[in-house]
Amino acid sequence: MTLPITFEDVRSAALRLADTAHRTPVLTSRTANARTGADLFFKCENLQRIGAFKFRGAYNALSRFSPEQRRRGVIAYSSGNHAQAIALSAQLLDMPAVIVMPEDAPAMKLAATRGYGAEVVLYDRYTESREEIGLRIASERGLTLVPPYDHADVMAGQGTCALELIEDVGALDVLVVCVGGGGLISGCATAAKHLLPGCMVVGVEPEAGNDVQRSLREGHIVHIPVPRTIADGAQTQHAGQLTFPVMQALVDDVVTVRDDQLVETMRFFAERMKLVVEPTGCLAAAAALDGALPVAGRRVGVIVSGGNIDMVRFAALVAGS
Amino acid sequence: MTLPITFEDVRSAALRLADTAHRTPVLTSRTANARTGADLFFKCENLQRIGAFKFRGAYNALSRFSPEQRRRGVIAYSSGNHAQAIALSAQLLDMPAVIVMPEDAPAMKLAATRGYGAEVVLYDRYTESREEIGLRIASERGLTLVPPYDHADVMAGQGTCALELIEDVGALDVLVVCVGGGGLISGCATAAKHLLPGCMVVGVEPEAGNDVQRSLREGHIVHIPVPRTIADGAQTQHAGQLTFPVMQALVDDVVTVRDDQLVETMRFFAERMKLVVEPTGCLAAAAALDGALPVAGRRVGVIVSGGNIDMVRFAALVAGS
Repeated sequence: MTLPITFEDVRSAALRLADTAHRTPVLTSRTANARTGADLFFKCENLQRIGAFKFRGAYNALSRFSPEQRRRGVIAYSSGNHAQAIALSAQLLDMPAVIVMPEDAPAMKLAATRGYGAEVVLYDRYTESREEIGLRIASERGLTLVPPYDHADVMAGQGTCALELIEDVGALDVLVVCVGGGGLISGCATAAKHLLPGCMVVGVEPEAGNDVQRSLREGHIVHIPVPRTIADGAQTQHAGQLTFPVMQALVDDVVTVRDDQLVETMRFFAERMKLVVEPTGCLAAAAALDGALPVAGRRVGVIVSGGNIDMVRFAALVAGS
Repeated sequence: MTLPITFEDVRSAALRLADTAHRTPVLTSRTANARTGADLFFKCENLQRIGAFKFRGAYNALSRFSPEQRRRGVIAYSSGNHAQAIALSAQLLDMPAVIVMPEDAPAMKLAATRGYGAEVVLYDRYTESREEIGLRIASERGLTLVPPYDHADVMAGQGTCALELIEDVGALDVLVVCVGGGGLISGCATAAKHLLPGCMVVGVEPEAGNDVQRSLREGHIVHIPVPRTIADGAQTQHAGQLTFPVMQALVDDVVTVRDDQLVETMRFFAERMKLVVEPTGCLAAAAALDGALPVAGRRVGVIVSGGNIDMVRFAALVAGS
């Protein structure tokens, strides 16, 4: 079966991103290693531009637009990191961008998105559909829609973070990646399984939103209600049409962690590693640090996917007891 | 005039530290560059072992002990990062360590110091002198005292952070370094002026504790009362006998910043760069970001010295308005 992306797509994406994305550092913690008995390598995408790995996929996708697409521009709907990733990428590539966001989105996120020069179109989450609004504007203005994960160029771009991690630290026994819609893990698994065929690739979902775990077990895409979890980047209700077959082919297992484990991991990152990591960004690390995944004696790559969290909320979570 | 340390001392320290200290990443922020018009390079010593540059000096000093000194052990008095730096270095070099700490020191710091295997001796800050206690125990047990900054091996070890920064990013027009007792800036200036004779080296003190600024202007070491500032690592009351002549020879200027600028910088690091930085660690960045120092059009190295701060306090500071 032919998968939607190949290792060559990830490698090409890496070339497109080379001068634009940060090559984020890989950090280690002897405390974490002592606690787990593993060698853990944290790939810090919270230190990526816009504070999350989403920049990699967005920029890769937009840089492949035709001249005509580029002239007309891009549209996306998101209240999260994808919005800022598209807005910044469009600014860098000098193309118009429209971002459809809920009118009750945090003022900081609206301001950041507008700060990158994007036009923000607000909608009422309770009475309007962002998909309908997005499609209407796209068709009226001839804009190209870039979805947050179910898109080959987005997946390939996101996979560059595993490529860099393996280039930097060498062989890994396990690669642990958070799972929302499956874009990040699809790209990362594509890179990892090509470079290190024996490396296990494990996804991590919030316990309350384990749709991908269930989908892989049941062999088809399972839809769930919006999960109640602090991991807002993993509140997706189903895997993508493109990401699912890649995960079926290349992901060895999916485990889950609870919200209290995410909070404990967030505090660990802040106290011991001096890093601000958002709840979704703690998923993979929580599984490695807190026993959901057996890692002792292994070399384990851990993707820390992002660090975008309101400071008041962050403060409340890390200072809580 | 012969200075207490030379570039060769810094280079030798770098060799001793090579397999033990983290080579900390140098991070950049386009937001910070856009705001200042400069190219800022942040050397992240908050990501160093024990969360601060102090590890470099402590480990360098202890690794130069004679076999007899090593057998008997080390003593230090500190309630801050130096305590943990000495305790961890002694553990790594397999020698006994005694740390004299105030009995009202935070429980977390006591636990961390004991966690590295050091013996903690408590004293009453209001009725006892830590110097007297330290000297008495040192003489009774034949321990070697390592002070936090006024020691050639400590200064040379701390200078390795500027050496690494310059190796990683190349030429700099300005290097900005926080100043407490002057150990870090002495070592850093020694490295910077050797590698880049045209590079300005600028120290930053809290406005309330500008003893080094005054000392350099007046040409002798000025003593001040304990300054009231949140930059607890820079609450020193006077420069050292060894650090002062190095600063006189190699530091071009000392500027000051206010506590509210430190808080604003701490929030900038957390929100925009996803880093936990302690108040003292924000001194150099605050001067570069907030206008105390003209940096537009220049390549500027900024030492981010540490990230050790209680999470409750950190939360209160970054979430405040």
